[in-house]
Amino acid sequence: MDKNIFMELLAKRQFKAVRSILDVMNAIDIASLLSELKDKELAQAFRLIPKDKAAEVFANMSNTMQGYLINIFTEKELKDILDDMFMDDTVDLLEELPANVVTRILETIGQEKRSQINVLLHYPEDSAGTIMTTEYVDLRKWMTVSQAMAHIKEVGIHKETIYTCYVLDARRLIGIVTAKDLMTADDNETIEDLMETEIICVNTHDDKEEVGQLFSKYDLLALPVLDVDGRMVGIVTVDDAMDVVVDEATEDITLMAAINPSEKPYFDTTVFQHAKNRILWLLILMLSATITGTIITRYENAFAVIPILVSFIPMLMDTGGNCGSQSSTLVIRGIALGEIQFKDIFRVMFKEFRISLLVGSALALANGIRILIMYRNPSLAVVIGISLAATIMLSKLIGCILPLLAKKVHLDPAIMAAPLITTLVDTCSILIYFNVATLIFHLSV
Amino acid sequence: MDKNIFMELLAKRQFKAVRSILDVMNAIDIASLLSELKDKELAQAFRLIPKDKAAEVFANMSNTMQGYLINIFTEKELKDILDDMFMDDTVDLLEELPANVVTRILETIGQEKRSQINVLLHYPEDSAGTIMTTEYVDLRKWMTVSQAMAHIKEVGIHKETIYTCYVLDARRLIGIVTAKDLMTADDNETIEDLMETEIICVNTHDDKEEVGQLFSKYDLLALPVLDVDGRMVGIVTVDDAMDVVVDEATEDITLMAAINPSEKPYFDTTVFQHAKNRILWLLILMLSATITGTIITRYENAFAVIPILVSFIPMLMDTGGNCGSQSSTLVIRGIALGEIQFKDIFRVMFKEFRISLLVGSALALANGIRILIMYRNPSLAVVIGISLAATIMLSKLIGCILPLLAKKVHLDPAIMAAPLITTLVDTCSILIYFNVATLIFHLSV
Repeated sequence: MDKNIFMELLAKRQFKAVRSILDVMNAIDIASLLSELKDKELAQAFRLIPKDKAAEVFANMSNTMQGYLINIFTEKELKDILDDMFMDDTVDLLEELPANVVTRILETIGQEKRSQINVLLHYPEDSAGTIMTTEYVDLRKWMTVSQAMAHIKEVGIHKETIYTCYVLDARRLIGIVTAKDLMTADDNETIEDLMETEIICVNTHDDKEEVGQLFSKYDLLALPVLDVDGRMVGIVTVDDAMDVVVDEATEDITLMAAINPSEKPYFDTTVFQHAKNRILWLLILMLSATITGTIITRYENAFAVIPILVSFIPMLMDTGGNCGSQSSTLVIRGIALGEIQFKDIFRVMFKEFRISLLVGSALALANGIRILIMYRNPSLAVVIGISLAATIMLSKLIGCILPLLAKKVHLDPAIMAAPLITTLVDTCSILIYFNVATLIFHLSV
Repeated sequence: MDKNIFMELLAKRQFKAVRSILDVMNAIDIASLLSELKDKELAQAFRLIPKDKAAEVFANMSNTMQGYLINIFTEKELKDILDDMFMDDTVDLLEELPANVVTRILETIGQEKRSQINVLLHYPEDSAGTIMTTEYVDLRKWMTVSQAMAHIKEVGIHKETIYTCYVLDARRLIGIVTAKDLMTADDNETIEDLMETEIICVNTHDDKEEVGQLFSKYDLLALPVLDVDGRMVGIVTVDDAMDVVVDEATEDITLMAAINPSEKPYFDTTVFQHAKNRILWLLILMLSATITGTIITRYENAFAVIPILVSFIPMLMDTGGNCGSQSSTLVIRGIALGEIQFKDIFRVMFKEFRISLLVGSALALANGIRILIMYRNPSLAVVIGISLAATIMLSKLIGCILPLLAKKVHLDPAIMAAPLITTLVDTCSILIYFNVATLIFHLSV
């Protein structure tokens, strides 16, 4: 839909045409179209959205616009929207909006929903409980397929998914029946005969990253969530699991570049916030790079005698940093995908050691030959070759060990990525380099 | 399931017990359990898997094991498995297995399926066509809900999903009906009344990354794929879209660490392959770091006179590299998520410029003060301060521009990440640094 045409129709008060447009548009596209409107137009346009889409459009708008709309809604409008919204979207709303708006929401929704929301709001950050919804279809094992279908027809319209139904017995989950089973089975079969009893599930307190891993491993559409006592309390649906997978990857990528992760898209983050997210890590890394600098000054004599030594510093530092971050990146991603665990540490180390032997000798050889040809100085070629090979081996080891250690002490392994590894490896490579040089050229320190 | 118990039962030929275990286990877990077995045991165990799960287990095994099994299968066993496998899994199989195994598969499957597979095999790499399946439920607009349900009951069992049904008219897609609509509607309503006509779809040749973006934007369960003439040829299901999202993130993360992406998990890649994936980029980056080194030698006089200058090289290089890679990382991820496009280049540049002003002045100030206190040398503080601020501003600009330019010329923006940016920025920071120093300390070059 062209934004300008839409705005013009709205300005000309062609409400019937606007309504027809909104009628055929997808809720998510309406939300992004409305996000370009100013306050008064926004309110006007929002009221023209067909009733059955309004809640979904609302759930997909930015927090600023949601806050604005809630303030201008009548009591009845707000109640209608909140009644139609899924529990997990309502909780997201309450977590993001300012306190006065939250109060208005809590006053409007009914007592029962309010206490459910309260429970949802108190799960630990990043846990499965925070992304689940409490609305699912529950069946009983004695139901026949046609009874189950009738039950779904009655309650299903208000559920986020009806494609996986849960068979409960005294709030305990005893089986799962998919809508596909129901639709392709005989009407008189019982749920007990049809249900799958090997169930994949998570606990409310499990990390949501694990939820994402389960979805992609088992190709799930929904995943039941149990409380500490093993009672079923909700489900996570595949769309929310997809968001988790995307967000976790973004968070890792951001953190791996020494930036505090922000949940907002690039353009929605202010300049000041961007600077704040980046500056702390830069300061820390700058301080540790200063240590490397200080170490260099200890070898002043070396490069006073052989000034050419200084010119290899960038190459050694960069190659060491790159090798280390290659290893750390692969290990960090392997941990995130559940492919590498702490118990694999020696397997990883042995693998990286063999890789670094291959890579180290190849690069040392390439450099040695280049130096022999360019400077006709065999000793220099040997110094650079040995330093390079040693730096590469050490950096690959540091790069693979640190993320696993971080995981062990419950830090995010993504911290142990390129920037930190580079800084650590820098110091090591300078020390190796000048010690080798001092030794081979018989320099005094 | 404990592997040892399972192996013991198998060794003791307790086939009934093994069969009962396999009966309750999930196909994906069976696949990973079987992956620990040796050849003969594998064949034995595989033949004990219940018929209705065998194809799914097979589809989830490693290529090596699939190849082994296909070679020992009887004609009938192979035919049964292939008949039960979804089209997209069969295509994956053909793409990965050695030629002689492929021949055996193609001889076994029927003519009709073979020609469909041939079409699927010829879509461009990474296109939507390569991840779609041709098995979906198609309805006609004149059907009633109960006719549609009867149709699904008849054909649905063999389809990968029945939750989104497609209304076709002369092979053209005219509407979409969800199973939820069908299950909650009156039996006599017609499909035409029920169907959604605003359809989100892709073309066979569209990039699969775009498919992933559409799924996470619109919370889809399945996405129809049309050919160039607008005829419906298949669907992508959410489980495959999830795999795309995970794989694309892994590919970006790997590439951003200067490693050629591999589709295999860390431990499944050989040492030699790991080394090969890493060495090319290291060589390229090493050569460009050598240029930086050569530039340093031009300023030999400067650090001969003021040796302390050398000690700030690591700090300047690292900080510049980190700043540049912060910007490039955020831009690369923004491009991957569809949040940043080439047309935004000036907006991004202006934003990064303002951020770099804040970050640059803060870090320059911090460093200047430190140097004043430690060395009591105001000129040195000014040199480092100016060099640092200028380096930061330049690196942030380089970092945000290069990924966008790469996108524009259809290169993967992830190439323009930390390692390459660091090397580029190194040269710039050294040039800035020694020029500022030469100027302020009145040195001769």
